[in-house]
Amino acid sequence: MMQDFSQLDANGRLRHLITLEGLDPALIRELIERARGYLCRPGELPPRGDDLRGWTVANLFAEPSTRTRASFELAALRLGADAVNLDVMLSSRVKGESIIDTIYTLQAMQVDVFVIRDAQPGIIEFVARHVAGHVSVISGGEAHISHPTQGLLDALTIQLHTGGFRDLVVTIVGDIRHSRVARSAHRALAALGVGELRLVAPEDMMPEPDEFAGARRFRSFDEGIELADVVMMLRIQRERIAGAAPTDVDHYHALYGLTAARLARARAQAIVMHPGPMNRGVEISSEVADGPQSVIREQVSNGVAMRMAILAQIAESRRRRAP
Amino acid sequence: MMQDFSQLDANGRLRHLITLEGLDPALIRELIERARGYLCRPGELPPRGDDLRGWTVANLFAEPSTRTRASFELAALRLGADAVNLDVMLSSRVKGESIIDTIYTLQAMQVDVFVIRDAQPGIIEFVARHVAGHVSVISGGEAHISHPTQGLLDALTIQLHTGGFRDLVVTIVGDIRHSRVARSAHRALAALGVGELRLVAPEDMMPEPDEFAGARRFRSFDEGIELADVVMMLRIQRERIAGAAPTDVDHYHALYGLTAARLARARAQAIVMHPGPMNRGVEISSEVADGPQSVIREQVSNGVAMRMAILAQIAESRRRRAP
Amino acid sequence: MMQDFSQLDANGRLRHLITLEGLDPALIRELIERARGYLCRPGELPPRGDDLRGWTVANLFAEPSTRTRASFELAALRLGADAVNLDVMLSSRVKGESIIDTIYTLQAMQVDVFVIRDAQPGIIEFVARHVAGHVSVISGGEAHISHPTQGLLDALTIQLHTGGFRDLVVTIVGDIRHSRVARSAHRALAALGVGELRLVAPEDMMPEPDEFAGARRFRSFDEGIELADVVMMLRIQRERIAGAAPTDVDHYHALYGLTAARLARARAQAIVMHPGPMNRGVEISSEVADGPQSVIREQVSNGVAMRMAILAQIAESRRRRAP
Repeated sequence: MMQDFSQLDANGRLRHLITLEGLDPALIRELIERARGYLCRPGELPPRGDDLRGWTVANLFAEPSTRTRASFELAALRLGADAVNLDVMLSSRVKGESIIDTIYTLQAMQVDVFVIRDAQPGIIEFVARHVAGHVSVISGGEAHISHPTQGLLDALTIQLHTGGFRDLVVTIVGDIRHSRVARSAHRALAALGVGELRLVAPEDMMPEPDEFAGARRFRSFDEGIELADVVMMLRIQRERIAGAAPTDVDHYHALYGLTAARLARARAQAIVMHPGPMNRGVEISSEVADGPQSVIREQVSNGVAMRMAILAQIAESRRRRAP
Repeated sequence: MMQDFSQLDANGRLRHLITLEGLDPALIRELIERARGYLCRPGELPPRGDDLRGWTVANLFAEPSTRTRASFELAALRLGADAVNLDVMLSSRVKGESIIDTIYTLQAMQVDVFVIRDAQPGIIEFVARHVAGHVSVISGGEAHISHPTQGLLDALTIQLHTGGFRDLVVTIVGDIRHSRVARSAHRALAALGVGELRLVAPEDMMPEPDEFAGARRFRSFDEGIELADVVMMLRIQRERIAGAAPTDVDHYHALYGLTAARLARARAQAIVMHPGPMNRGVEISSEVADGPQSVIREQVSNGVAMRMAILAQIAESRRRRAP
Repeated sequence: MMQDFSQLDANGRLRHLITLEGLDPALIRELIERARGYLCRPGELPPRGDDLRGWTVANLFAEPSTRTRASFELAALRLGADAVNLDVMLSSRVKGESIIDTIYTLQAMQVDVFVIRDAQPGIIEFVARHVAGHVSVISGGEAHISHPTQGLLDALTIQLHTGGFRDLVVTIVGDIRHSRVARSAHRALAALGVGELRLVAPEDMMPEPDEFAGARRFRSFDEGIELADVVMMLRIQRERIAGAAPTDVDHYHALYGLTAARLARARAQAIVMHPGPMNRGVEISSEVADGPQSVIREQVSNGVAMRMAILAQIAESRRRRAP
C-alpha cells in the first residue's frame, strides 16, 4: 500500500474498506457495535433502514453467484439502495487504463459504492485511488491478500460468543499461506488485542515468517488446539493437497481435519468457525460442522449485518463530509 | 415422498409447495380464488401488495433466464419482497451435504422463500425438509415429476373459461411420459374432480400404467380429442422424436400435432392450452396457437397471478404461526 | 422501415423508440429538455421519480453486463419501475415465430417496456409491431443501423456545451460505415439543424454515398477537424484495421487517432466525445481522453438522464392515451 492512500476521509471516518491494516481499533469496535443492531433472531424479519435511500451500489464480481455477492446485495437492498450486479473481472482487461475507464463509466451513472472482488492484488485499491470524492469502494475479497468484511464478521462472531478478546486463544488451521480470510482475521484480532493467535498448518501452507506478527506457529494440530477458545478452520482447495487423491485427502484430514476428538482438546465452550464453503470430511468433520459448538451458519448472518453496518457507516461519513 | 413430510404447517395451511399430490381441494380452490384477485385487464397495471414487505425471495434456477424464473421474480417484487437470483444447480454439487450447506448459507442471510428448479428428483423436498421452521420452499419445476405452480395456473385458466370442472373433458397430448406439466395438471384436475381426463400419446411417450390414475388413454389423437372441452398440448423435445429429421417431425405433426381440422373435433368452445415454449409446426400449428380458442398467453398472465397467490398464502400462514 | 409503422401514438407522442429517422425535431428538443431535469452535480444523489411506479421494464440484452444495459436498468429503477434482466438474443432463435412467442410470453407477465439490443437488423421494429397497444419498445442498439438513445444523449451533451446547433461544425471520425452511433448522431443532428456535419474515415470505413445526406466527407483528419466545434470519435474494432498488427494500429492512430496536436486544429473550445469503450492509443490518445476538452464521462451521465426522460415521456404518452 502506498503512503499517500487512506481509506479514511479527512474526518478520520470510513470512506473505503480495502484492508483492515492500520484501521483504528475504535473504528472496528464501532462497526461491531453497529452490526449488532442489524442482527435478528431466526424467523424474524431482518432490520431494515433508509441509510442508502437514493444510493446505487454496484457489485462487480467475476463470478455472478457467489455467496458474498448475495450478502452484499441483500445488505444494500435492506438499507434502501438500488443494487446492480455486473459480471466484471476488472483484472482480465488487457490494459490498466481500461479498468479505470470501466469504473469511470459506472461512476458516471451515479454509482455511489463499488463492491469489488478481484483476483489481482492491488486492483481494488487502484480503483479506490481513482474514484470521485463522494464514491466509496469496498473489497469483496482480494486475491490471497485481504477480505476485510470477512475479518470483521469473524470478529463480530467471536465477540458475540466470548464477550471480549483480551484473554482469548484463537487457533487458525489450514492453508493459511494462501488465505485472505486468515490475513484479515489476523488483522482484526490483532487490532482488538486478542490474547493469543495460533497458526496450525503443514509446512507448505504456513505463511512466510515475516507475516502474521505475534502469532505462534504449530505443525501439530493437537498442540495448537490445546485450550483454544476459538478454532477457525479454513477451506482447503483440494488441488493444494498434493495429488488430492483420496489417500491424500484422508491423510490431510487425519493431520489437519477438525474432528470431535480433536475439538475435545480445546476449551469446553470453544466455538468452531469456517468461512465456507466447507469441504466436509476434509478440513472438518460433519459431526463438528453441525455440532453444538459450530457457529458457522451464524457467521453468514453476521456477514449481512456487518456489511449493512459498513454501508451505513460509509453513508454517515459522506453525509458528514457534505457541506 | 416419505411419510413424515408435510407441505402444510400445524394449522393445515400451506408452508411449502413441492407437489400437488395429496393437497386438499379446498386449498387449491382457495389459491385459485386468491389468484383471481391478482388478475388484471391487458394494459392495466397489475395489482400489487405488501404481503411480502421485508421478505427475501431467492430464485435458485440452473438456467438464469427462464420464463418461470422471471414469473416468480415479478410475483415476488409485486408483493414487496426483495428478490435475488442465483444461478445454482443444486444437484450438480458433488456431495449431498453441500446442497444443504448452500441452502443453510442462504437461509442464514434471512432468505424467507426459496424457489428452486432442479433436474434431480427429490432435491426440492430434501431442501424443504432441512430449512428452518419459518422458511418456505416452492418448486419451480422438478425433473419430469412435478411442476405444481404450472398445475395450479392451468387449473385457474380452465376455471376462468369453463366455470367448473365436474363435467369437463380434458385431453392432454404429447410426451406425457416425461412431462412434469402433465403430472401436475393431472393432480390438480383430479383434486378438483374433473369429469374426464384423456391422455393422447404414441406408445413411447405414454406413462407407465400405474400413473395417471383414472385417465383414459388414446393412441389416436382424433379419438382422444372428440368433444373435449380443454386440449392441453405439451412441448415436444425434438430429440425425443426418433431421429428428429424433418420427416420425423412431419410424421409427428401429422399424428399428434394440433391443427385446426383436428381441433374442429373438440367442442366448439374448447380452449387450447400449452405451457410454452411452443414448437410451432411440431406439436401445434400456428393457426391454432394464434387462433380464437387459444388461451396460451393468458396462461402466462395467470402464472404470475398464481405465484403471487401462493406467496401471499405462505406469508399469511407464517403470520398465523407466529406468536 | 415499412410505411405503416409509426413510433408515435395517435396523439403524435412517443410510444416506441426504434430510430431517430423522421422524428419531429420538437420532440427531440422536448426530450433534451426533460433529460436536463434529471441531471445532477457529481456527488449529489440523482433525481428520482414515480413516473414508472407499478411498471415493469424488461431488458433483453444478449450480453448481460453491458454498460448500456446498466444505464437502462438504473434509469428504470430511479423512476420507480421494477426491472428484470433477461439474457435473450432474440435473433439467435431458429425460427422467426419464436421471437414473437418470447415477447408475447413476457408481455403476458405485464411487462410494460422492452429494452432490446440485437444484432439482427429489423428485429426490434418487428417486436414493436407485434406488442400490445399499451406496451413500448426501446432500442438499446440495433446492429450497425441505429442506437437512438445514444444519438439523443449525444445531442444533449452537445447542447449543454454549445447552447445550440445552427452554427456548429461536428466532425465524426472512424469506422462510420459500421457504426450505429454515427448513424443516430447524424439523424439527431440533422433534425436539430446542425450547421455542418463532417465525416472523416479511410475509404473502407466511409459509408455508402447515399447515406449521411448533407454531410461533407474527408479522407484527411487534419482537414476534417479544421475549426470543428465537436469532435466525435468512434470506437474502432481492432479486427477492422487490416491485420490489426501493432504496426497497423500505429498506422491507424497516426492517420485517424485524435491526439492533442490534431485537436489543436479544432476550435479552442471544441469538445471531444466518444461513446465508449475507448481503445486508448488507437482512435484516441489518453492525453485527449482525459484532457479538459473531453466530455466522455459526462456522456455516460447524460445517458442515464436521457433514458429516464424517454421512459418518463413514454409513461406520459400512455397516460394520455388511457381513457
